[in-house]
Amino acid sequence: MNVVPLPRVLVEPIVAAALREDLGRAGDLTTDAIVPGDLSGRGTLVARSDGRIAGLDAAVLAFELLDSSLLARVHVEAGSAVVAGARLATIEGRVRALLTAERTALNFLGHLSGIATATAGIVDAIGGQGTRVADTRKTTPGLRALEKHAVRAGGGSNHRFGLDDAVLVKDNHVAAAGGVGEAVRRARAYVGHLVKVQAEVDEPSQIDDALDAGADALLLDNFSPDQLALAVKHVGGRAITEASGTITPATAPAVAASGVDLLSVGWLTHSAPTLDVALDLDG
Amino acid sequence: MNVVPLPRVLVEPIVAAALREDLGRAGDLTTDAIVPGDLSGRGTLVARSDGRIAGLDAAVLAFELLDSSLLARVHVEAGSAVVAGARLATIEGRVRALLTAERTALNFLGHLSGIATATAGIVDAIGGQGTRVADTRKTTPGLRALEKHAVRAGGGSNHRFGLDDAVLVKDNHVAAAGGVGEAVRRARAYVGHLVKVQAEVDEPSQIDDALDAGADALLLDNFSPDQLALAVKHVGGRAITEASGTITPATAPAVAASGVDLLSVGWLTHSAPTLDVALDLDG
Amino acid sequence: MNVVPLPRVLVEPIVAAALREDLGRAGDLTTDAIVPGDLSGRGTLVARSDGRIAGLDAAVLAFELLDSSLLARVHVEAGSAVVAGARLATIEGRVRALLTAERTALNFLGHLSGIATATAGIVDAIGGQGTRVADTRKTTPGLRALEKHAVRAGGGSNHRFGLDDAVLVKDNHVAAAGGVGEAVRRARAYVGHLVKVQAEVDEPSQIDDALDAGADALLLDNFSPDQLALAVKHVGGRAITEASGTITPATAPAVAASGVDLLSVGWLTHSAPTLDVALDLDG
Amino acid sequence: MNVVPLPRVLVEPIVAAALREDLGRAGDLTTDAIVPGDLSGRGTLVARSDGRIAGLDAAVLAFELLDSSLLARVHVEAGSAVVAGARLATIEGRVRALLTAERTALNFLGHLSGIATATAGIVDAIGGQGTRVADTRKTTPGLRALEKHAVRAGGGSNHRFGLDDAVLVKDNHVAAAGGVGEAVRRARAYVGHLVKVQAEVDEPSQIDDALDAGADALLLDNFSPDQLALAVKHVGGRAITEASGTITPATAPAVAASGVDLLSVGWLTHSAPTLDVALDLDG
Amino acid sequence: MNVVPLPRVLVEPIVAAALREDLGRAGDLTTDAIVPGDLSGRGTLVARSDGRIAGLDAAVLAFELLDSSLLARVHVEAGSAVVAGARLATIEGRVRALLTAERTALNFLGHLSGIATATAGIVDAIGGQGTRVADTRKTTPGLRALEKHAVRAGGGSNHRFGLDDAVLVKDNHVAAAGGVGEAVRRARAYVGHLVKVQAEVDEPSQIDDALDAGADALLLDNFSPDQLALAVKHVGGRAITEASGTITPATAPAVAASGVDLLSVGWLTHSAPTLDVALDLDG
Amino acid sequence: MNVVPLPRVLVEPIVAAALREDLGRAGDLTTDAIVPGDLSGRGTLVARSDGRIAGLDAAVLAFELLDSSLLARVHVEAGSAVVAGARLATIEGRVRALLTAERTALNFLGHLSGIATATAGIVDAIGGQGTRVADTRKTTPGLRALEKHAVRAGGGSNHRFGLDDAVLVKDNHVAAAGGVGEAVRRARAYVGHLVKVQAEVDEPSQIDDALDAGADALLLDNFSPDQLALAVKHVGGRAITEASGTITPATAPAVAASGVDLLSVGWLTHSAPTLDVALDLDG
Repeated sequence: MNVVPLPRVLVEPIVAAALREDLGRAGDLTTDAIVPGDLSGRGTLVARSDGRIAGLDAAVLAFELLDSSLLARVHVEAGSAVVAGARLATIEGRVRALLTAERTALNFLGHLSGIATATAGIVDAIGGQGTRVADTRKTTPGLRALEKHAVRAGGGSNHRFGLDDAVLVKDNHVAAAGGVGEAVRRARAYVGHLVKVQAEVDEPSQIDDALDAGADALLLDNFSPDQLALAVKHVGGRAITEASGTITPATAPAVAASGVDLLSVGWLTHSAPTLDVALDLDG
Repeated sequence: MNVVPLPRVLVEPIVAAALREDLGRAGDLTTDAIVPGDLSGRGTLVARSDGRIAGLDAAVLAFELLDSSLLARVHVEAGSAVVAGARLATIEGRVRALLTAERTALNFLGHLSGIATATAGIVDAIGGQGTRVADTRKTTPGLRALEKHAVRAGGGSNHRFGLDDAVLVKDNHVAAAGGVGEAVRRARAYVGHLVKVQAEVDEPSQIDDALDAGADALLLDNFSPDQLALAVKHVGGRAITEASGTITPATAPAVAASGVDLLSVGWLTHSAPTLDVALDLDG
Repeated sequence: MNVVPLPRVLVEPIVAAALREDLGRAGDLTTDAIVPGDLSGRGTLVARSDGRIAGLDAAVLAFELLDSSLLARVHVEAGSAVVAGARLATIEGRVRALLTAERTALNFLGHLSGIATATAGIVDAIGGQGTRVADTRKTTPGLRALEKHAVRAGGGSNHRFGLDDAVLVKDNHVAAAGGVGEAVRRARAYVGHLVKVQAEVDEPSQIDDALDAGADALLLDNFSPDQLALAVKHVGGRAITEASGTITPATAPAVAASGVDLLSVGWLTHSAPTLDVALDLDG
Repeated sequence: MNVVPLPRVLVEPIVAAALREDLGRAGDLTTDAIVPGDLSGRGTLVARSDGRIAGLDAAVLAFELLDSSLLARVHVEAGSAVVAGARLATIEGRVRALLTAERTALNFLGHLSGIATATAGIVDAIGGQGTRVADTRKTTPGLRALEKHAVRAGGGSNHRFGLDDAVLVKDNHVAAAGGVGEAVRRARAYVGHLVKVQAEVDEPSQIDDALDAGADALLLDNFSPDQLALAVKHVGGRAITEASGTITPATAPAVAASGVDLLSVGWLTHSAPTLDVALDLDG
Repeated sequence: MNVVPLPRVLVEPIVAAALREDLGRAGDLTTDAIVPGDLSGRGTLVARSDGRIAGLDAAVLAFELLDSSLLARVHVEAGSAVVAGARLATIEGRVRALLTAERTALNFLGHLSGIATATAGIVDAIGGQGTRVADTRKTTPGLRALEKHAVRAGGGSNHRFGLDDAVLVKDNHVAAAGGVGEAVRRARAYVGHLVKVQAEVDEPSQIDDALDAGADALLLDNFSPDQLALAVKHVGGRAITEASGTITPATAPAVAASGVDLLSVGWLTHSAPTLDVALDLDG
Repeated sequence: MNVVPLPRVLVEPIVAAALREDLGRAGDLTTDAIVPGDLSGRGTLVARSDGRIAGLDAAVLAFELLDSSLLARVHVEAGSAVVAGARLATIEGRVRALLTAERTALNFLGHLSGIATATAGIVDAIGGQGTRVADTRKTTPGLRALEKHAVRAGGGSNHRFGLDDAVLVKDNHVAAAGGVGEAVRRARAYVGHLVKVQAEVDEPSQIDDALDAGADALLLDNFSPDQLALAVKHVGGRAITEASGTITPATAPAVAASGVDLLSVGWLTHSAPTLDVALDLDG
């Protein structure tokens, strides 16, 4: 699995803002009051459940931004499958800094590993059928780049990152244009040559209309597995096919069996539970 | 339920950043290509499931920041219980703007209403036992103020907002100080007179030590319901009692029956699923 | 020509920063000292040369951000062809505000209209041959969204907006992969299904290799018009063809005659001269 | 030539923003997909045309901000005259980082060196006549400090940096005051003792009026060379004299021969073409 | 006294940041808990001591940024002398908003009026001797523009605003150059034609050296009144003269009697006490 | 005295903004013109008066942010009492950088040490009576965290940091609620369990009402020392007692003799004069 880290220049402002959100105006009252400033120790980020890891870069950065004298070693790569108890990274230095940055680091690590784990769960469920699992734009405000990176870490594939890097014609666009074909034609004429056009179709009769107008991909929304299989056959490779509509780990295998190229799963980023992670400290 | 809206000066930077995250560098290619600029219409934010509403201010603000000529009417207050199909707000104006801001608005509304709904679920589960449900600092980076507001909208109560507005003595602090009493004493001496001190205790034997040192509140971590009941009796009103440790809707009633003042539930903000919400458009 | 304005939420931070850059720490000393605060007047943004207009939204916003009581009327749309003397917009209100915002407004308007004019110059030069004129990422730091919008206003087409919305395999990537086909294959496997892959080819022998690997588009770099014509014929519609390499208004018609789909012209955004614009004031 | 670098604390936010503008939400898809993460190499920034160098600090900073492990050596100073092929700086380290930061670095280097080269062109054209070449406030929004630094690197001199560091009385101010003398008097009375006052005069008759009121400098706008020579003689050293009005490399020598102290050339910052620069990579 | 307000685009970010600093993450707990949301009232900003007013724009903006439905009327202009009890501005609307913004508004108003009052105190003390009172760069971090505006409101004059808008040669520069004359010559050769050069001289023997090198102004540091009078006479109008060195209201008249053009008083911005101001509320 | 430094992630944005405020758009013209770029030296931050030190971290950071190659050694801790002439920190490296950052560094150091010194003055004045000295929210906009840290450095105690970390019921809240008891009850019901509630009482008759409603602390406003003594006796340890109302070093001992727990002194942060500090340079 090849999951390249996001550039630090993108991640650092988000992590610094999260630290400031937790530090408030006076910093960590508890730790400052109780822990001696010269006490050194070692903290280990560990998984408390089985899962896939994402967000470890951000977690480590939280420690480094709080105290640049901390030394971190990372033990697993983004996208690694781990079991409960696995040691993910070790950070050494002032105990005060370890305790103060702990929660911010864990919030990134747990949230993003939760997304990676959820993604891997669906990827594994559909097994070797050749269907990829894609995310949506239903992400947490402010964290889209990190959450979509976590989807990649879980073995998933990214749908568009925003409103500006691909066209997705939806029902309201179709209504405004008077038909999916006309909508696709308008989009094709408007956008640059490196922008793909995907059209959502709600019923099989729209497929040819969309393809004739030049759609690169179809979003088959709320089709049953049988309808999907028929649609995939009808498309016959003329466009990429993607299924959407409340797909869960339980329903994913049947949907994938239809032969669609991708499943689109909003749940990965809007409802995946956190992965249980912790910082173990030994003085 | 009295849930005062957050001041716009706090919410606007977060919503504006979310819009920019979605608009990228070129804006909404699809809508710009397909929907005529002078087409007007009305969008209605609706709930697709039963739940509690939070984040409606942020959702409406997404529309207003995108296009200040849109007119919004809000139909329900923060904290309202709604049923599937309920109309939450209506926004009228340029259809382009309605479609472009839609996803950003829904991401706030769904995420925050999901938290409010999860909170209300636990509050309702424990019924009229007088125990309050509190959140934690396990929030999504960048959204703490909004998420804790959503907890209030769900009928919950806020634990501290960060490291600086209250003291929470945890196991590592106790270890550094050589005992919970000493840790509490150090904290009490260090902080201002308007800062409360809470101490986590992992076993009953620490309770008197913490109370003698002046703890205002105790966090009883991973106590069984029976242990909790004994602890509450032992404390006898000398401090606020709060139970923590993987509390779920299923286990909450039994925990609450112990008589503790609060249940602390990290799950509210780190793992609550989104509430299903949508924008219905009629031209 | 359909050139949709950029959302204000994207443009406002750039214009506000430009105003602050000019106002410094003390504001407009000259105007504050000399012009009475209650003097009202009307300023008219005018073109002093023939050209295409872009950036008028940003220019008007400069006035509005400086003084929200100013009233602006815009007389031409983005992308309009105008002749010297044309009135572009009228702003009425306090003369102090008109004079203080003048230079910031003109800097946006002149720079972006210069780009639109340069683009239109090449578009017009190649006439009705069906070849589109595309920009590059050789833009002025901080202004990419505005400059690429200006290219659209000039009748041009946008190449990718950044490193993340399309793949462009260049010579160094080919070298690292050991061949253009392998490079394209790696890219195709890595990116999401809505990302197009374009490959730069420096010699005809690479074309089939790139196409076989699934390239959506080819960038034919530094091909002579004759080589381009042969390449276009060889590609035969299997991919989009784009010519690059120091294309100027003088050479563009001959290059376009080769039948390539697009010409890529860095000069549009890195070297186009400003359009001469001014603010005429009448008290 | 003494051209002191701008402090990094001023330049870094601009370069970081430019990197983020290019990286978008997903980073460099092409390089991440194709180039191995552990591949090291050396990139050399080179000039492809003769010119004057500016912006090399910003260019190198783009590499360093992307990847702090890159090692850079700078071979020429700001303001150096170079010939096509000259090596400007060498950066060693991860090839991925070299390729990802390349375009941002080149955009700064080419744009700012273009300004320095244009400035030097006019400076050289007027030769040893003692007349200095000055810029204007017609700069690119967001880049004024860098562009004015580039003018210095080209041997030019800076006019004021904004509305707040000097007074420039222009025609509209004269009209509001009822005369250039009154306008200068108002300005002189209003500003602090370290602020110079320059007055634009459109005809010789205004000169004495401005000087009597205490103008430190005159901007002789659209005077012919003969009129300029007469004006300079008339001023007789009582104020600094500056000529403005569409001065180009072709017309500059004749204007300078009039004996004015400075030529003001907006073209340096609003229309100078980029200098052709590149990054040569060897593995 | 002509004191033009600072542009809102400069002031708003400072006031918004101050509001956010006070609101923290949860807003005004006290007011939200106690005051009904629909309670309207009127608040009046009043002076509790005699003084000069500055910062009223910022104070009113604090209310408006918190709640755009508040209506404000301003009763006095910046720079007005007021007596204890004077009504400065009235704000009407939701009582919650009035109470929440109160402290932020008062902090700006009291601090800046304190500076204006201190300035006016020295200006009045030296009476009609023709000597102006100037500030320094010893300002509160982040508030320089506002504090220097307050000095103008108090009848004072601004020294330079930063390191970049004028030259001030001080003792360490003289030491590095080997003499004040050489230091002034280097500065004169380096800077643009609209930048004034002031030289600090610590003893009379340096005066001619500085003037011969072209200094526009002299800063006579720690001269006795008699030494100042001699120095002023010696300069004889060849440069602006400014006295500095722990000047207080008590010592100012004697210093001014020396005939220097300006007194430089750091105390205005680094140590002036706040003016006592309050918000009176009537329901 | 245990005064833990604020995390750098909180302080750095404030110091960087202050540097940019002073550098403007062109940097330090004087130093750049006069001081050779390769001249090295050593600067020593020294106190010129007796006092308490605060803000040394921020001062040193100003040097480091300007030039990361400077080497700093800090000689005294925050909160140290020093005498005139004391050496506080030494910074070695390029003289240019030392001179350019000097004023920004001194502005932080002088302002914050002034607050610490003022605080210590009152703490010392009231001697060993057991009464603590507390600050208020009357702080300089943008500097609250630093100023409250300086109060701690002076031996003082912090009142709340903002509107959101504690409740302070004031006269207008009492009026809105119809009584101090009702106001306290509303607050107690509204806020989380870790938020303390303090009530301002203007006359003794309100005390029991506030205590019965559950106030944790009382703010006894404008009570005479005798009234205070009676009130303290009446409260009898049921709540923390704090006296407020124009307390100065002169009046503080008498107020403290009343036995109140705290004195609240707004003067510490809104009117304390700067401590005289300087940078001594030796080449």
